[in-house]
Amino acid sequence: MEGVRHVFYVSDGTGITAETIGHSLLTQFNGIEFATRRIAFVDSLEKAESAVAEIRAAELASGLRPVVVNTVVDPDLNALLAASGALMLDAFEPFISPLERELGQKRQSRVGRAHGLVDFAAYEQRINATNYALTHDDGMDVHYDDADVILVGVSRSGKTPTCLYLALHYGVKAANYPLTIEDLEGRELPRRLRKHRSKLFGLTIDPVRLQQIRQERRPNSRYANLETCRAEVIAAEAMFRQENIPVLSTTHTSIEEISGKVLAQLGIHRHMF
Amino acid sequence: MEGVRHVFYVSDGTGITAETIGHSLLTQFNGIEFATRRIAFVDSLEKAESAVAEIRAAELASGLRPVVVNTVVDPDLNALLAASGALMLDAFEPFISPLERELGQKRQSRVGRAHGLVDFAAYEQRINATNYALTHDDGMDVHYDDADVILVGVSRSGKTPTCLYLALHYGVKAANYPLTIEDLEGRELPRRLRKHRSKLFGLTIDPVRLQQIRQERRPNSRYANLETCRAEVIAAEAMFRQENIPVLSTTHTSIEEISGKVLAQLGIHRHMF
Repeated sequence: MEGVRHVFYVSDGTGITAETIGHSLLTQFNGIEFATRRIAFVDSLEKAESAVAEIRAAELASGLRPVVVNTVVDPDLNALLAASGALMLDAFEPFISPLERELGQKRQSRVGRAHGLVDFAAYEQRINATNYALTHDDGMDVHYDDADVILVGVSRSGKTPTCLYLALHYGVKAANYPLTIEDLEGRELPRRLRKHRSKLFGLTIDPVRLQQIRQERRPNSRYANLETCRAEVIAAEAMFRQENIPVLSTTHTSIEEISGKVLAQLGIHRHMF
Repeated sequence: MEGVRHVFYVSDGTGITAETIGHSLLTQFNGIEFATRRIAFVDSLEKAESAVAEIRAAELASGLRPVVVNTVVDPDLNALLAASGALMLDAFEPFISPLERELGQKRQSRVGRAHGLVDFAAYEQRINATNYALTHDDGMDVHYDDADVILVGVSRSGKTPTCLYLALHYGVKAANYPLTIEDLEGRELPRRLRKHRSKLFGLTIDPVRLQQIRQERRPNSRYANLETCRAEVIAAEAMFRQENIPVLSTTHTSIEEISGKVLAQLGIHRHMF
């Protein structure tokens, strides 16, 4: 792996914070081949030593100094990691002093606590929302009184993963309704959606991309035919326009971004879990 | 809201990076009442001004200086946000110079790009894994040849949300198999699981907590009875021990942590999406 820049996300917890910030940083540099690796639950000298060994081996293999994005709180473990010789980026360190001054309090440095304890009420909200998404997926259950959001779009436009993401990360009850050929030929909003108009959000997608996705699912079917895809997308977009439903194309948008935009557009303010 | 410390996660993208790092920072301070709010897609002067107005209103209401965790890249928008008078914590700034020196390259400052472009292959992997989790949930489809992970446990021990999280965030094909009364009375690993032993991971849960969860689902049923819960959990844990299946209690563990530990234990190295 000569010439590859190794990046390690090292944490005493899951490593999600380190990986999130590290990934955001790396996308700001172009044309460099990065090899990234998360090393989670580094909460003992043995685990820190094994991480150091891995970091050193990567440097030997690539000939380039590795980068470590680090959220380990324990100073002894941090000293050990720093001895690896990698460029150490401590994801918390720059912010702790200003926060301590502002809040008039010293940080509590407990290993593995960076993500906080599990809050039963929050957990329940996520689980209930996930169950809701599962039972209200793909038009299965169309009683939407409890829904926070109803995603509407043609089959394979990205509704299901967005609903699950909204449930898992925001505890939002998200249902989704697939526009069928009959719905689209009717040229108006299906009756059962009408009374929930304020919760509706339309997803659309480039027909060529849709065709690729459907082709993988049901090769050479009428369903996966480019003309079918094009006709469905045109009819769905016309319906969204006519009914004044906010709409977003998922073609070049990540699940995270779709979810963020749906919540912003519908004015739903929820914390992320 | 006097005395409440307002914290804003402000971003030109989804705000996920700002919220992730900010949340990790706040959990390191105890006994302070925080009110947090994500302001996403701040990519114009108008949106920055509206964010500033909100930050100032929060300061007036609480009498305390707000904290802003910021991932906006555009310097003009940042200057505007800083004029709000809040404590500004720029989640990228401390790391950019060291990275620029190490990589021998200037950052590319494109608004809203911090999370990178959508990579079709990665998107497909997430979607396929999510479909896999949906079709292999709760013992629905028990053909596990394609599974990366099979979570095993009694009903409501946390298998489904963990599978969905593994799929959405790591593109891991995660199935789950609920241990039924018959399985537990058989006192040995169900036959269909035996050939996939290396993919198995057991979830367990405190019986009192399980009883609460089941009670909400089917009040006053035999299923939700504390004795039933206790007997099932004891039998499941005995089976995990006997069959040497790694096991984790979900009682005090977040979905993120459960997912992280499952991957670490089974030696599955995947990047987070």
